[in-house]
Amino acid sequence: MYFERVAIVGVGLIGGSFGLALKAAKRCGHVVGIGRSVANLKLAADRGCIDSYAADVELGVKNADLVLVATPVAQFSSIFLSLKKNLSSNALITDGGSTKRDVVAAARAALGPAIRQFVPAHPVAGAEKSGAGAANAELFRNRRVVLTPLAENDEASVERVSAAWGACGARLSRMSLEEHDEVLAAVSHLPHLLAYALVGDIAQRPNAAQLFSYAAGGFRDFTRIASSSPEMWRDICVANSDKLLGELNRFSDSLLQYKKILERKDPEQLQKVFTEAREARERWLKGEYE
Amino acid sequence: MYFERVAIVGVGLIGGSFGLALKAAKRCGHVVGIGRSVANLKLAADRGCIDSYAADVELGVKNADLVLVATPVAQFSSIFLSLKKNLSSNALITDGGSTKRDVVAAARAALGPAIRQFVPAHPVAGAEKSGAGAANAELFRNRRVVLTPLAENDEASVERVSAAWGACGARLSRMSLEEHDEVLAAVSHLPHLLAYALVGDIAQRPNAAQLFSYAAGGFRDFTRIASSSPEMWRDICVANSDKLLGELNRFSDSLLQYKKILERKDPEQLQKVFTEAREARERWLKGEYE
Repeated sequence: MYFERVAIVGVGLIGGSFGLALKAAKRCGHVVGIGRSVANLKLAADRGCIDSYAADVELGVKNADLVLVATPVAQFSSIFLSLKKNLSSNALITDGGSTKRDVVAAARAALGPAIRQFVPAHPVAGAEKSGAGAANAELFRNRRVVLTPLAENDEASVERVSAAWGACGARLSRMSLEEHDEVLAAVSHLPHLLAYALVGDIAQRPNAAQLFSYAAGGFRDFTRIASSSPEMWRDICVANSDKLLGELNRFSDSLLQYKKILERKDPEQLQKVFTEAREARERWLKGEYE
Repeated sequence: MYFERVAIVGVGLIGGSFGLALKAAKRCGHVVGIGRSVANLKLAADRGCIDSYAADVELGVKNADLVLVATPVAQFSSIFLSLKKNLSSNALITDGGSTKRDVVAAARAALGPAIRQFVPAHPVAGAEKSGAGAANAELFRNRRVVLTPLAENDEASVERVSAAWGACGARLSRMSLEEHDEVLAAVSHLPHLLAYALVGDIAQRPNAAQLFSYAAGGFRDFTRIASSSPEMWRDICVANSDKLLGELNRFSDSLLQYKKILERKDPEQLQKVFTEAREARERWLKGEYE
Protein backbone atom coordinates (compact mmCIF):
# COMPACT_ATOMS: atom_id res chain seq x y z
CA MET A 1 0.00 0.00 0.00
CA TYR A 2 1.39 3.35 -1.09
CA PHE A 3 -0.27 6.67 -1.93
CA GLU A 4 1.39 9.00 -4.42
CA ARG A 5 -0.42 12.10 -3.29
CA VAL A 6 -2.39 12.55 -0.09
CA ALA A 7 -4.69 15.52 0.52
CA ILE A 8 -5.57 16.36 4.12
CA VAL A 9 -8.51 18.70 4.62
CA GLY A 10 -8.23 20.09 8.16
CA VAL A 11 -4.64 19.75 9.38
CA GLY A 12 -5.34 19.73 13.11
CA LEU A 13 -4.55 17.12 15.72
CA ILE A 14 -6.01 14.25 13.67
CA GLY A 15 -5.10 15.46 10.18
CA GLY A 16 -1.60 16.55 11.16
CA SER A 17 -0.90 13.31 13.00
CA PHE A 18 -2.14 11.29 10.02
CA GLY A 19 0.33 13.11 7.74
CA LEU A 20 3.20 12.61 10.16
CA ALA A 21 2.41 8.94 10.70
CA LEU A 22 1.96 8.05 7.01
CA LYS A 23 5.22 9.80 6.17
CA ALA A 24 7.04 8.12 9.05
CA ALA A 25 5.79 4.76 7.74
CA LYS A 26 6.98 5.75 4.23
CA ARG A 27 3.58 4.97 2.78
CA CYS A 28 3.07 8.17 0.84
CA GLY A 29 4.67 10.61 -1.55
CA HIS A 30 3.54 14.23 -1.46
CA VAL A 31 1.11 15.42 1.23
CA VAL A 32 -0.90 18.56 0.63
CA GLY A 33 -2.85 20.31 3.38
CA ILE A 34 -5.99 22.40 3.07
CA GLY A 35 -7.47 24.50 5.87
CA ARG A 36 -9.00 27.77 6.97
CA SER A 37 -5.98 29.13 8.80
CA VAL A 38 -2.82 29.83 6.85
CA ALA A 39 -0.91 30.17 10.13
CA ASN A 40 -1.92 26.64 11.10
CA LEU A 41 -1.02 25.30 7.62
CA LYS A 42 2.42 26.93 7.87
CA LEU A 43 2.91 25.38 11.29
CA ALA A 44 1.84 22.01 9.87
CA ALA A 45 4.37 22.34 7.05
CA ASP A 46 7.13 23.42 9.46
CA ARG A 47 6.39 20.39 11.61
CA GLY A 48 6.47 18.04 8.61
CA CYS A 49 2.80 17.07 8.73
CA ILE A 50 2.37 18.23 5.12
CA ASP A 51 4.71 19.09 2.23
CA SER A 52 2.67 21.93 0.78
CA TYR A 53 -0.69 23.56 1.15
CA ALA A 54 -3.43 24.59 -1.23
CA ALA A 55 -5.76 27.56 -1.13
CA ASP A 56 -8.96 25.53 -1.35
CA VAL A 57 -10.32 22.02 -1.35
CA GLU A 58 -11.02 21.97 -5.08
CA LEU A 59 -7.39 22.66 -5.94
CA GLY A 60 -5.98 20.65 -3.08
CA VAL A 61 -7.52 17.30 -3.96
CA LYS A 62 -6.45 17.43 -7.62
CA ASN A 63 -4.50 14.27 -8.49
CA ALA A 64 -4.69 12.98 -4.92
CA ASP A 65 -5.17 9.24 -4.59
CA LEU A 66 -6.09 9.56 -0.91
CA VAL A 67 -8.11 12.32 0.74
CA LEU A 68 -8.57 12.61 4.51
CA VAL A 69 -11.31 14.94 5.74
CA ALA A 70 -10.54 15.84 9.34
CA THR A 71 -12.39 19.05 10.12
CA PRO A 72 -15.22 19.49 12.62
CA VAL A 73 -18.12 17.47 11.22
CA ALA A 74 -20.47 20.36 10.45
CA GLN A 75 -18.09 21.39 7.62
CA PHE A 76 -18.22 18.02 5.86
CA SER A 77 -21.15 18.85 3.52
CA SER A 78 -19.48 21.78 1.87
CA ILE A 79 -16.10 20.02 1.81
CA PHE A 80 -17.55 16.99 0.00
CA LEU A 81 -19.25 19.29 -2.52
CA SER A 82 -15.94 21.02 -3.22
CA LEU A 83 -13.75 17.97 -3.33
CA LYS A 84 -15.83 16.02 -5.83
CA LYS A 85 -15.14 18.59 -8.55
CA ASN A 86 -11.54 17.50 -9.06
CA LEU A 87 -11.68 14.07 -7.47
CA SER A 88 -9.75 11.42 -9.42
CA SER A 89 -11.77 8.32 -10.16
CA ASN A 90 -9.11 6.18 -8.48
CA ALA A 91 -8.96 8.35 -5.33
CA LEU A 92 -10.13 7.03 -1.98
CA ILE A 93 -11.60 9.27 0.69
CA THR A 94 -11.61 8.63 4.41
CA ASP A 95 -12.33 10.88 7.36
CA GLY A 96 -11.68 11.51 11.04
CA GLY A 97 -15.21 12.42 12.10
CA SER A 98 -16.38 11.41 15.59
CA THR A 99 -19.93 10.79 14.35
CA LYS A 100 -20.79 8.69 11.36
CA ARG A 101 -24.48 8.78 10.38
CA ASP A 102 -24.40 12.52 9.66
CA VAL A 103 -21.04 12.33 7.88
CA VAL A 104 -22.24 9.58 5.56
CA ALA A 105 -25.53 11.37 4.87
CA ALA A 106 -23.58 14.49 3.93
CA ALA A 107 -21.19 12.49 1.76
CA ARG A 108 -23.96 10.62 0.00
CA ALA A 109 -25.85 13.81 -0.77
CA ALA A 110 -22.75 15.58 -2.07
CA LEU A 111 -20.80 12.85 -3.83
CA GLY A 112 -23.47 10.98 -5.74
CA PRO A 113 -22.00 7.83 -7.34
CA ALA A 114 -18.54 8.78 -6.01
CA ILE A 115 -19.81 7.73 -2.57
CA ARG A 116 -18.25 4.33 -3.39
CA GLN A 117 -14.84 6.03 -3.01
CA PHE A 118 -15.57 7.11 0.57
CA VAL A 119 -14.63 4.69 3.37
CA PRO A 120 -15.71 6.39 6.63
CA ALA A 121 -13.42 6.09 9.64
CA HIS A 122 -13.27 7.32 13.20
CA PRO A 123 -9.88 7.33 14.91
CA VAL A 124 -10.75 6.98 18.61
CA ALA A 125 -7.69 8.94 19.65
CA GLY A 126 -8.59 12.38 20.76
CA ALA A 127 -6.87 14.76 23.07
CA GLU A 128 -7.95 18.02 24.60
CA LYS A 129 -5.26 19.74 22.51
CA SER A 130 -6.11 20.83 19.01
CA GLY A 131 -4.32 22.25 15.96
CA ALA A 132 -1.26 21.15 14.00
CA GLY A 133 0.93 22.08 16.97
CA ALA A 134 -0.51 19.12 18.88
CA ALA A 135 -0.01 16.60 16.06
CA ASN A 136 2.33 13.68 16.56
CA ALA A 137 3.28 10.62 14.54
CA GLU A 138 2.37 8.27 17.39
CA LEU A 139 -1.15 9.55 18.08
CA PHE A 140 -2.81 6.50 16.52
CA ARG A 141 -0.36 3.90 17.84
CA ASN A 142 -2.41 1.08 19.40
CA ARG A 143 -5.53 3.24 19.29
CA ARG A 144 -8.73 2.02 17.72
CA VAL A 145 -9.85 3.24 14.33
CA VAL A 146 -13.44 2.25 13.61
CA LEU A 147 -14.35 1.82 9.95
CA THR A 148 -18.02 1.96 9.01
CA PRO A 149 -17.86 0.66 5.41
CA LEU A 150 -20.75 1.41 3.09
CA ALA A 151 -22.70 -0.93 0.84
CA GLU A 152 -21.23 1.02 -2.10
CA ASN A 153 -17.59 0.39 -1.11
CA ASP A 154 -15.79 -2.49 -2.75
CA GLU A 155 -13.73 -4.59 -0.39
CA ALA A 156 -10.43 -3.61 -2.05
CA SER A 157 -11.14 0.05 -1.21
CA VAL A 158 -11.95 -0.80 2.39
CA GLU A 159 -8.76 -2.84 2.66
CA ARG A 160 -6.68 -0.05 1.20
CA VAL A 161 -8.08 2.54 3.64
CA SER A 162 -7.62 0.03 6.49
CA ALA A 163 -4.00 -0.36 5.47
CA ALA A 164 -3.47 3.42 5.56
CA TRP A 165 -4.77 3.68 9.13
CA GLY A 166 -2.95 0.48 10.02
CA ALA A 167 0.31 2.03 8.79
CA CYS A 168 -0.28 4.77 11.39
CA GLY A 169 -0.24 2.06 14.07
CA ALA A 170 -3.99 1.85 14.62
CA ARG A 171 -6.02 -1.20 15.59
CA LEU A 172 -8.83 -1.51 13.03
CA SER A 173 -12.37 -2.65 13.64
CA ARG A 174 -15.67 -2.33 11.78
CA MET A 175 -19.17 -1.32 12.85
CA SER A 176 -22.41 -0.18 11.32
CA LEU A 177 -23.08 3.57 11.33
CA GLU A 178 -25.82 3.23 13.90
CA GLU A 179 -23.79 1.03 16.22
CA HIS A 180 -20.83 3.39 16.01
CA ASP A 181 -22.87 6.41 16.99
CA GLU A 182 -24.48 4.54 19.89
CA VAL A 183 -21.22 3.21 21.31
CA LEU A 184 -19.42 6.55 21.07
CA ALA A 185 -22.36 8.44 22.59
CA ALA A 186 -21.96 6.29 25.71
CA VAL A 187 -18.20 6.23 26.21
CA SER A 188 -17.13 9.52 24.66
CA HIS A 189 -19.86 12.04 23.88
CA LEU A 190 -21.68 11.79 27.23
CA PRO A 191 -18.50 12.10 29.35
CA HIS A 192 -17.52 15.21 27.39
CA LEU A 193 -20.94 16.75 27.97
CA LEU A 194 -20.80 15.95 31.70
CA ALA A 195 -17.34 17.47 32.07
CA TYR A 196 -18.37 20.66 30.28
CA ALA A 197 -21.55 20.79 32.39
CA LEU A 198 -19.71 20.44 35.68
CA VAL A 199 -17.10 23.09 34.95
CA GLY A 200 -19.69 25.41 33.42
CA ASP A 201 -21.95 25.13 36.44
CA ILE A 202 -19.16 25.95 38.88
CA ALA A 203 -17.94 28.84 36.73
CA GLN A 204 -21.38 30.48 36.93
CA ARG A 205 -21.57 30.65 40.71
CA PRO A 206 -20.88 33.73 42.81
CA ASN A 207 -18.20 31.78 44.73
CA ALA A 208 -16.64 30.23 41.61
CA ALA A 209 -13.15 31.46 42.52
CA GLN A 210 -13.31 29.85 45.95
CA LEU A 211 -14.68 26.59 44.55
CA PHE A 212 -11.99 26.34 41.87
CA SER A 213 -9.30 27.16 44.41
CA TYR A 214 -10.16 23.98 46.35
CA ALA A 215 -10.43 21.75 43.29
CA ALA A 216 -7.62 19.20 43.25
CA GLY A 217 -6.21 16.40 41.13
CA GLY A 218 -9.43 14.40 40.91
CA PHE A 219 -11.25 17.43 39.54
CA ARG A 220 -8.42 18.16 37.12
CA ASP A 221 -8.57 14.72 35.52
CA PHE A 222 -12.36 14.48 35.62
CA THR A 223 -12.63 17.76 33.72
CA ARG A 224 -9.64 17.42 31.38
CA ILE A 225 -11.95 16.80 28.41
CA ALA A 226 -13.76 20.08 29.17
CA SER A 227 -10.66 21.72 27.66
CA SER A 228 -11.50 20.12 24.30
CA SER A 229 -12.38 22.19 21.24
CA PRO A 230 -15.86 23.75 21.73
CA GLU A 231 -16.40 23.90 17.97
CA MET A 232 -15.61 20.22 17.45
CA TRP A 233 -17.80 19.14 20.36
CA ARG A 234 -20.63 21.45 19.40
CA ASP A 235 -20.74 19.71 16.02
CA ILE A 236 -20.55 16.22 17.52
CA CYS A 237 -23.36 16.95 19.97
CA VAL A 238 -25.61 18.34 17.24
CA ALA A 239 -24.80 15.53 14.80
CA ASN A 240 -25.40 12.78 17.35
CA SER A 241 -28.06 14.55 19.40
CA ASP A 242 -30.55 11.65 19.36
CA LYS A 243 -28.09 9.05 20.68
CA LEU A 244 -26.59 11.54 23.12
CA LEU A 245 -30.04 12.44 24.44
CA GLY A 246 -30.67 8.73 24.99
CA GLU A 247 -27.48 8.50 27.03
CA LEU A 248 -28.25 11.67 28.93
CA ASN A 249 -31.70 10.39 29.87
CA ARG A 250 -30.23 7.09 30.96
CA PHE A 251 -27.59 8.83 33.05
CA SER A 252 -30.18 11.15 34.62
CA ASP A 253 -32.18 8.08 35.64
CA SER A 254 -29.05 6.62 37.15
CA LEU A 255 -28.50 9.83 39.16
CA LEU A 256 -32.07 9.55 40.44
CA GLN A 257 -31.16 6.17 41.90
CA TYR A 258 -28.14 7.76 43.60
CA LYS A 259 -30.39 10.47 45.02
CA LYS A 260 -32.60 7.84 46.61
CA ILE A 261 -29.58 6.05 48.06
CA LEU A 262 -28.27 9.33 49.51
CA GLU A 263 -31.67 10.32 50.85
CA ARG A 264 -31.87 7.15 52.88
CA LYS A 265 -28.11 7.29 53.67
CA ASP A 266 -27.62 3.69 52.67
CA PRO A 267 -23.96 2.75 53.19
CA GLU A 268 -24.40 -0.88 52.04
CA GLN A 269 -25.85 0.14 48.69
CA LEU A 270 -23.20 2.83 48.19
CA GLN A 271 -20.44 0.35 48.95
CA LYS A 272 -22.01 -2.08 46.49
CA VAL A 273 -22.34 0.33 43.58
CA PHE A 274 -18.95 1.95 44.15
CA THR A 275 -17.26 -1.44 44.39
CA GLU A 276 -18.93 -2.69 41.21
CA ALA A 277 -17.84 0.43 39.36
CA ARG A 278 -14.28 0.24 40.62
CA GLU A 279 -13.96 -3.43 39.78
CA ALA A 280 -15.30 -2.87 36.27
CA ARG A 281 -12.83 -0.04 35.74
CA GLU A 282 -9.93 -2.17 37.03
CA ARG A 283 -10.89 -4.95 34.60
CA TRP A 284 -10.97 -2.39 31.81
CA LEU A 285 -7.53 -1.02 32.78
CA LYS A 286 -6.16 -4.56 32.75
CA GLY A 287 -7.36 -4.94 29.16
CA GLU A 288 -9.99 -7.56 29.92
CA TYR A 289 -12.45 -5.91 27.55
CA GLU A 290 -10.12 -5.65 24.54
CA MET B 1 7.54 22.99 66.35
CA TYR B 2 8.54 19.46 67.22
CA PHE B 3 6.54 16.43 68.34
CA GLU B 4 8.21 13.80 70.53
CA ARG B 5 5.76 11.06 69.75
CA VAL B 6 3.22 10.98 66.93
CA ALA B 7 0.40 8.44 66.76
CA ILE B 8 -1.20 7.81 63.36
CA VAL B 9 -4.52 5.98 63.39
CA GLY B 10 -5.04 4.62 59.89
CA VAL B 11 -1.71 4.43 58.07
CA GLY B 12 -3.02 4.60 54.51
CA LEU B 13 -2.28 7.10 51.77
CA ILE B 14 -2.89 10.13 54.01
CA GLY B 15 -1.61 8.73 57.32
CA GLY B 16 1.45 7.11 55.78
CA SER B 17 2.35 10.22 53.80
CA PHE B 18 1.97 12.37 56.94
CA GLY B 19 4.46 10.14 58.78
CA LEU B 20 6.92 10.21 55.90
CA ALA B 21 6.64 13.98 55.46
CA LEU B 22 6.99 14.87 59.17
CA LYS B 23 10.01 12.60 59.45
CA ALA B 24 11.56 14.04 56.30
CA ALA B 25 11.12 17.52 57.79
CA LYS B 26 12.71 16.30 61.05
CA ARG B 27 9.76 17.56 63.04
CA CYS B 28 9.09 14.46 65.07
CA GLY B 29 10.65 11.74 67.18
CA HIS B 30 8.95 8.36 67.30
CA VAL B 31 5.95 7.63 65.07
CA VAL B 32 3.59 4.83 66.04
CA GLY B 33 0.96 3.47 63.67
CA ILE B 34 -2.38 1.89 64.52
CA GLY B 35 -4.63 0.11 62.04
CA ARG B 36 -6.82 -2.86 61.23
CA SER B 37 -4.41 -4.64 58.93
CA VAL B 38 -1.10 -5.87 60.34
CA ALA B 39 0.14 -6.46 56.79
CA ASN B 40 -0.46 -2.79 55.97
CA LEU B 41 1.24 -1.67 59.23
CA LYS B 42 4.28 -3.83 58.42
CA LEU B 43 4.42 -2.32 54.96
CA ALA B 44 4.15 1.16 56.52
CA ALA B 45 7.05 0.36 58.86
CA ASP B 46 9.14 -1.08 56.02
CA ARG B 47 8.55 2.06 53.99
CA GLY B 48 9.50 4.31 56.92
CA CYS B 49 6.06 5.86 57.41
CA ILE B 50 6.07 4.71 61.06
CA ASP B 51 8.69 3.44 63.52
CA SER B 52 6.49 0.94 65.31
CA TYR B 53 2.91 -0.12 65.53
CA ALA B 54 0.48 -0.74 68.35
CA ALA B 55 -2.28 -3.31 68.68
CA ASP B 56 -5.02 -0.80 69.42
CA VAL B 57 -5.80 2.89 69.60
CA GLU B 58 -5.84 2.99 73.39
CA LEU B 59 -2.27 1.70 73.65
CA GLY B 60 -1.05 3.52 70.58
CA VAL B 61 -1.87 7.05 71.66
CA LYS B 62 -0.23 6.70 75.10
CA ASN B 63 2.31 9.49 75.59
CA ALA B 64 1.72 10.84 72.09
CA ASP B 65 1.80 14.63 71.82
CA LEU B 66 0.23 14.53 68.35
CA VAL B 67 -2.45 12.15 67.08
CA LEU B 68 -3.57 12.00 63.45
CA VAL B 69 -6.83 10.16 62.73
CA ALA B 70 -6.82 9.20 59.06
CA THR B 71 -9.27 6.34 58.64
CA PRO B 72 -12.53 6.39 56.65
CA VAL B 73 -14.77 8.83 58.51
CA ALA B 74 -17.39 6.33 59.70
CA GLN B 75 -14.78 4.90 62.10
CA PHE B 76 -14.07 8.21 63.80
CA SER B 77 -16.66 7.81 66.61
CA SER B 78 -15.20 4.62 67.99
CA ILE B 79 -11.63 5.83 67.47
CA PHE B 80 -12.26 9.02 69.46
CA LEU B 81 -13.86 6.99 72.25
CA SER B 82 -10.79 4.74 72.39
CA LEU B 83 -8.16 7.40 72.12
CA LYS B 84 -9.46 9.59 74.91
CA LYS B 85 -8.74 6.93 77.51
CA ASN B 86 -4.97 7.40 77.39
CA LEU B 87 -4.83 10.83 75.79
CA SER B 88 -2.19 13.11 77.35
CA SER B 89 -3.55 16.47 78.39
CA ASN B 90 -0.88 18.18 76.27
CA ALA B 91 -1.62 16.10 73.18
CA LEU B 92 -3.10 17.64 70.07
CA ILE B 93 -5.35 15.71 67.69
CA THR B 94 -5.88 16.41 64.01
CA ASP B 95 -7.44 14.37 61.25
CA GLY B 96 -7.53 13.70 57.53
CA GLY B 97 -11.29 13.38 57.09
CA SER B 98 -12.83 14.61 53.84
CA THR B 99 -15.98 15.77 55.64
CA LYS B 100 -15.98 17.94 58.71
CA ARG B 101 -19.42 18.41 60.31
CA ASP B 102 -19.81 14.70 61.04
CA VAL B 103 -16.22 14.32 62.22
CA VAL B 104 -16.57 17.19 64.69
CA ALA B 105 -19.94 15.93 65.94
CA ALA B 106 -18.38 12.52 66.56
CA ALA B 107 -15.37 14.06 68.28
CA ARG B 108 -17.47 16.33 70.46
CA ALA B 109 -19.69 13.45 71.57
CA ALA B 110 -16.74 11.21 72.35
CA LEU B 111 -14.11 13.56 73.72
CA GLY B 112 -16.09 15.81 76.05
CA PRO B 113 -13.89 18.66 77.34
CA ALA B 114 -10.89 17.19 75.45
CA ILE B 115 -12.53 18.49 72.28
CA ARG B 116 -10.32 21.57 72.80
CA GLN B 117 -7.36 19.36 71.86
CA PHE B 118 -8.84 18.46 68.45
CA VAL B 119 -8.02 20.75 65.52
CA PRO B 120 -9.88 19.31 62.49
CA ALA B 121 -8.11 19.29 59.15
CA HIS B 122 -8.78 18.12 55.62
CA PRO B 123 -5.76 17.61 53.36
CA VAL B 124 -7.16 18.13 49.85
CA ALA B 125 -4.66 15.73 48.37
CA GLY B 126 -6.31 12.50 47.45
CA ALA B 127 -5.40 9.92 44.91
CA GLU B 128 -7.22 6.88 43.61
CA LYS B 129 -4.53 4.73 45.24
CA SER B 130 -4.93 3.72 48.85
CA GLY B 131 -2.90 2.00 51.57
CA ALA B 132 0.59 2.58 52.96
CA GLY B 133 2.08 1.35 49.69
CA ALA B 134 0.81 4.53 48.01
CA ALA B 135 2.17 6.90 50.69
CA ASN B 136 4.83 9.43 49.74
CA ALA B 137 6.59 12.25 51.55
CA GLU B 138 5.60 14.77 48.87
CA LEU B 139 1.86 14.06 48.80
CA PHE B 140 0.99 17.31 50.58
CA ARG B 141 3.58 19.52 48.83
CA ASN B 142 1.77 22.66 47.63
CA ARG B 143 -1.60 21.01 48.28
CA ARG B 144 -4.25 22.70 50.33
CA VAL B 145 -4.98 21.62 53.89
CA VAL B 146 -8.19 23.16 55.19
CA LEU B 147 -8.37 23.66 58.95
CA THR B 148 -11.81 24.09 60.49
CA PRO B 149 -10.84 25.29 64.00
CA LEU B 150 -13.39 24.95 66.78
CA ALA B 151 -14.53 27.54 69.32
CA GLU B 152 -12.93 25.34 71.98
CA ASN B 153 -9.43 25.40 70.38
CA ASP B 154 -6.94 27.91 71.66
CA GLU B 155 -4.99 29.71 68.96
CA ALA B 156 -1.67 28.17 70.06
CA SER B 157 -3.10 24.70 69.38
CA VAL B 158 -4.35 25.74 65.98
CA GLU B 159 -0.97 27.24 65.16
CA ARG B 160 0.86 24.11 66.26
CA VAL B 161 -1.34 21.83 64.13
CA SER B 162 -0.97 24.28 61.23
CA ALA B 163 2.78 24.07 61.62
CA ALA B 164 2.68 20.26 61.48
CA TRP B 165 0.77 20.29 58.19
CA GLY B 166 2.91 23.17 56.98
CA ALA B 167 6.03 21.09 57.65
CA CYS B 168 4.58 18.53 55.21
CA GLY B 169 4.62 21.24 52.54
CA ALA B 170 0.90 22.06 52.61
CA ARG B 171 -0.75 25.42 51.96
CA LEU B 172 -2.99 26.13 54.94
CA SER B 173 -6.36 27.82 54.92
CA ARG B 174 -9.31 28.00 57.30
CA MET B 175 -13.04 27.58 56.85
CA SER B 176 -16.13 26.93 58.92
CA LEU B 177 -17.37 23.34 59.07
CA GLU B 178 -20.42 24.17 56.99
CA GLU B 179 -18.47 26.06 54.35
CA HIS B 180 -15.95 23.25 54.08
CA ASP B 181 -18.60 20.61 53.49
CA GLU B 182 -20.34 22.76 50.89
CA VAL B 183 -17.20 23.57 48.92
CA LEU B 184 -15.95 20.00 48.88
CA ALA B 185 -19.36 18.62 47.90
CA ALA B 186 -19.17 20.73 44.73
CA VAL B 187 -15.58 20.19 43.61
CA SER B 188 -14.80 16.75 45.01
CA HIS B 189 -17.73 14.69 46.25
CA LEU B 190 -20.03 15.28 43.27
CA PRO B 191 -17.34 14.50 40.64
CA HIS B 192 -16.56 11.23 42.44
CA LEU B 193 -20.23 10.27 42.46
CA LEU B 194 -20.60 11.10 38.75
CA ALA B 195 -17.53 9.05 37.83
CA TYR B 196 -18.75 6.03 39.81
CA ALA B 197 -22.24 6.44 38.29
CA LEU B 198 -20.94 6.55 34.72
CA VAL B 199 -18.69 3.50 35.05
CA GLY B 200 -21.33 1.60 37.02
CA ASP B 201 -23.99 2.28 34.42
CA ILE B 202 -21.82 1.07 31.56
CA ALA B 203 -20.74 -2.01 33.50
CA GLN B 204 -24.38 -3.07 33.91
CA ARG B 205 -25.24 -3.15 30.22
CA PRO B 206 -25.42 -6.29 28.08
CA ASN B 207 -22.82 -4.78 25.71
CA ALA B 208 -20.52 -3.53 28.50
CA ALA B 209 -17.48 -5.29 27.04
CA GLN B 210 -17.95 -3.65 23.66
CA LEU B 211 -18.52 -0.23 25.22
CA PHE B 212 -15.42 -0.44 27.41
CA SER B 213 -13.37 -1.66 24.46
CA TYR B 214 -14.02 1.66 22.65
CA ALA B 215 -13.41 3.86 25.69
CA ALA B 216 -10.26 5.92 25.22
CA GLY B 217 -8.06 8.44 27.02
CA GLY B 218 -10.83 10.92 27.77
CA PHE B 219 -12.88 8.22 29.45
CA ARG B 220 -9.83 7.00 31.37
CA ASP B 221 -9.13 10.40 32.93
CA PHE B 222 -12.81 11.25 33.47
CA THR B 223 -13.29 8.03 35.43
CA ARG B 224 -9.93 7.84 37.24
CA ILE B 225 -11.59 8.78 40.53
CA ALA B 226 -13.99 5.85 40.14
CA SER B 227 -11.00 3.71 41.11
CA SER B 228 -10.98 5.37 44.55
CA SER B 229 -11.65 3.42 47.74
CA PRO B 230 -15.37 2.46 47.85
CA GLU B 231 -15.28 2.36 51.65
CA MET B 232 -13.85 5.84 51.98
CA TRP B 233 -16.29 7.30 49.47
CA ARG B 234 -19.26 5.45 50.93
CA ASP B 235 -18.50 7.13 54.25
CA ILE B 236 -18.00 10.57 52.70
CA CYS B 237 -21.27 10.34 50.76
CA VAL B 238 -23.23 9.29 53.85
CA ALA B 239 -21.58 11.90 56.08
CA ASN B 240 -22.14 14.74 53.63
CA SER B 241 -25.36 13.46 52.08
CA ASP B 242 -27.30 16.72 52.51
CA LYS B 243 -24.71 18.91 50.76
CA LEU B 244 -24.06 16.25 48.13
CA LEU B 245 -27.78 15.94 47.42
CA GLY B 246 -27.89 19.71 46.95
CA GLU B 247 -25.10 19.46 44.39
CA LEU B 248 -26.67 16.47 42.69
CA ASN B 249 -29.99 18.31 42.33
CA ARG B 250 -28.19 21.34 40.97
CA PHE B 251 -26.27 19.23 38.47
CA SER B 252 -29.42 17.38 37.38
CA ASP B 253 -31.05 20.74 36.70
CA SER B 254 -28.03 21.70 34.66
CA LEU B 255 -28.34 18.47 32.62
CA LEU B 256 -32.00 19.33 31.97
CA GLN B 257 -30.81 22.54 30.33
CA TYR B 258 -28.41 20.54 28.16
CA LYS B 259 -31.25 18.22 27.17
CA LYS B 260 -33.26 21.19 25.96
CA ILE B 261 -30.31 22.49 23.98
CA LEU B 262 -29.79 19.07 22.37
CA GLU B 263 -33.49 18.65 21.63
CA ARG B 264 -33.52 21.85 19.63
CA LYS B 265 -30.01 21.10 18.21
CA ASP B 266 -28.79 24.56 19.06
CA PRO B 267 -25.17 24.91 17.92
CA GLU B 268 -24.80 28.54 19.08
CA GLN B 269 -25.81 27.74 22.64
CA LEU B 270 -23.59 24.64 22.74
CA GLN B 271 -20.64 26.66 21.47
CA LYS B 272 -21.34 29.27 24.14
CA VAL B 273 -21.58 26.91 27.12
CA PHE B 274 -18.64 24.77 25.99
CA THR B 275 -16.48 27.85 25.41
CA GLU B 276 -17.36 29.32 28.81
CA ALA B 277 -16.50 26.03 30.51
CA ARG B 278 -13.23 25.66 28.67
CA GLU B 279 -12.19 29.22 29.38
CA ALA B 280 -12.98 28.84 33.08
CA ARG B 281 -10.94 25.65 33.22
CA GLU B 282 -8.01 27.30 31.44
CA ARG B 283 -8.09 30.17 33.96
CA TRP B 284 -8.11 27.60 36.76
CA LEU B 285 -5.14 25.71 35.24
CA LYS B 286 -3.25 29.00 35.00
CA GLY B 287 -3.73 29.50 38.72
CA GLU B 288 -5.99 32.53 38.39
CA TYR B 289 -8.25 31.27 41.18
CA GLU B 290 -5.51 30.57 43.74
